[in-house]
Amino acid sequence: MATIHDVAKYAGISIATVSRALNKPEMVNAETLERVMHAARKLNYFKNDAKLQNVKNNKVSLGVIFPHITSYYFGELYSGISRAAQQHNIDLVLYELRNENISKQGLEEAFAFSKRHMVDGILLARNVPTAYDEAFERLDIPVALLLGTHESAKLPAFKVDDIRASFDAVSFLVSRGHRQIGMISLPPTDQMSDIVSRLRGFKQALDFYQLPFDEASVAYGNLRFDDGYSAMKELLASREKTGITAVFTVADEVAIGAMRCIQDAGLSVPEDISVIGFGNLSIANISTPKLTTVEQPFGNIGEEGVKYMAKVLSNPDHVEKGNFYLPYKIIERESVTERRALR
Amino acid sequence: MATIHDVAKYAGISIATVSRALNKPEMVNAETLERVMHAARKLNYFKNDAKLQNVKNNKVSLGVIFPHITSYYFGELYSGISRAAQQHNIDLVLYELRNENISKQGLEEAFAFSKRHMVDGILLARNVPTAYDEAFERLDIPVALLLGTHESAKLPAFKVDDIRASFDAVSFLVSRGHRQIGMISLPPTDQMSDIVSRLRGFKQALDFYQLPFDEASVAYGNLRFDDGYSAMKELLASREKTGITAVFTVADEVAIGAMRCIQDAGLSVPEDISVIGFGNLSIANISTPKLTTVEQPFGNIGEEGVKYMAKVLSNPDHVEKGNFYLPYKIIERESVTERRALR
Repeated sequence: MATIHDVAKYAGISIATVSRALNKPEMVNAETLERVMHAARKLNYFKNDAKLQNVKNNKVSLGVIFPHITSYYFGELYSGISRAAQQHNIDLVLYELRNENISKQGLEEAFAFSKRHMVDGILLARNVPTAYDEAFERLDIPVALLLGTHESAKLPAFKVDDIRASFDAVSFLVSRGHRQIGMISLPPTDQMSDIVSRLRGFKQALDFYQLPFDEASVAYGNLRFDDGYSAMKELLASREKTGITAVFTVADEVAIGAMRCIQDAGLSVPEDISVIGFGNLSIANISTPKLTTVEQPFGNIGEEGVKYMAKVLSNPDHVEKGNFYLPYKIIERESVTERRALR
Repeated sequence: MATIHDVAKYAGISIATVSRALNKPEMVNAETLERVMHAARKLNYFKNDAKLQNVKNNKVSLGVIFPHITSYYFGELYSGISRAAQQHNIDLVLYELRNENISKQGLEEAFAFSKRHMVDGILLARNVPTAYDEAFERLDIPVALLLGTHESAKLPAFKVDDIRASFDAVSFLVSRGHRQIGMISLPPTDQMSDIVSRLRGFKQALDFYQLPFDEASVAYGNLRFDDGYSAMKELLASREKTGITAVFTVADEVAIGAMRCIQDAGLSVPEDISVIGFGNLSIANISTPKLTTVEQPFGNIGEEGVKYMAKVLSNPDHVEKGNFYLPYKIIERESVTERRALR
């Protein structure tokens, strides 16, 4: 069991200073405080502190760091996390990343929050570039990724294999007779992104089935309904040239926007153009027509993340790295049908 | 500034026992622990505890207790709360109520979580019956309600006036020439519920416009898409008798289910039957047709709750009670049109 002496020794700071840092933090400078807190955490000093223990009531807490609380998938992922957390008697502490993109500063704020709230582990729903590794090392709390991956694969990541799932979505359209297939994708960026890798799966499938790839068959936009609507408008404008009869979209909300655009142009889904989504969010079931889509098992992804964390927290030597792919499947509803001649 | 002596005096317990309760809680019985913690909280004892202060870094935390994380409105309410919390430099700590209905036990668990995580105030998104008053008194942390109300009106509640808003939704249909108006409602229950009070607003409006109320024009169900679908099926079955040309629904998701049911029956929205929703969730904008609906200002409701709490926390004598109604408005899209003859 670590004492204040151990903390002082580890931090290379006098006992008096450590005591001051712990009891009157406003009297020490930020760097010293950081060193002391790091040592205290490293040595599990706080676990011995009955008063903190009492307040926390011995319950393990897991931080959940999430962008886009308003997105449709948040609730589905969170309820998987929540279900598993209840089973493992773990408290959850949610933090919303406010920027669309996970800036380093945004992440540091999330980590500071997590430390203030004494979480024992963190589930982060985001891709993590290698450039951020140092921030994770300083954090010194175990982290698992959900939906995203770590560029240098040093963190465990729970997700579906986006490339394979996209390949299979295109195969599904091919199996329905479609040969001219369009895609609505996120714009490719420098930063590695799983959603962008869906475009790779799309291209691989065209290649595999020896179908033509035409730049005009791919439109780019963000992930909301309106983005899908405008991207589809572009695809319709070049339709005489491309002859597309089906569209693969990177997200359900985009697919629903695209369907609406097709309908507003006086065409019908799926008779004139079939549309397949990605996600299987609950909105897929309330659109007209109901959306055929690739199911991402959000609930299971959340559960697996919590289960992994429960293992790590009961045995800190248990560390796993790399991507853990969960199974996906295609949910067939009403938005894809057999190809028919272009009208 | 409270000392351990003050806590002992307030609790009527010896200093040694208080010290034991604070430092080795496992050595005292639950009742004693409860008394000590109550006294310590009451006297702000923990505020003097540098170690806790340090961990919390002087930041105020607000607990957010919420049912239905997966519901479409959660994100919209939470992002309003989150925006205001950031402005006031407040940390949020979310807790999901897992039962559809706020059982007393569920609430007690949420309160225990809030205490473990040392929140300074609580925003609760729920109706609270008088029978729960005692639990709130024991809680001893200020609470404000969002969307719901307190039956005995002892807690501040931020919401729209559901009766008036429903009255206005019906008025809107009347202004478009509709005279036979149906409703899809939550089943009336003993427990007071704001959503149920939308049925009262509906009836008051029929009364005001001297329109007939026919039991067969009201169907009951829960708040999801499928519930709206089946309720609409009932309304269609009795349509020859009731002659309804428009339907007021208690929630957007219900409205979208109802629209789909109408379409599946070979009728069209709004030409054959107009539909108006309640909420103005983001799904209202992605349905076909886009949904005309009563806007509940979820974001503002969240912000007002946080602002109130910031006031209370900076001045504990500042207490307000009762309902604070926020403005709503009708958002006109595509699902309501002028009445035409029954076909």
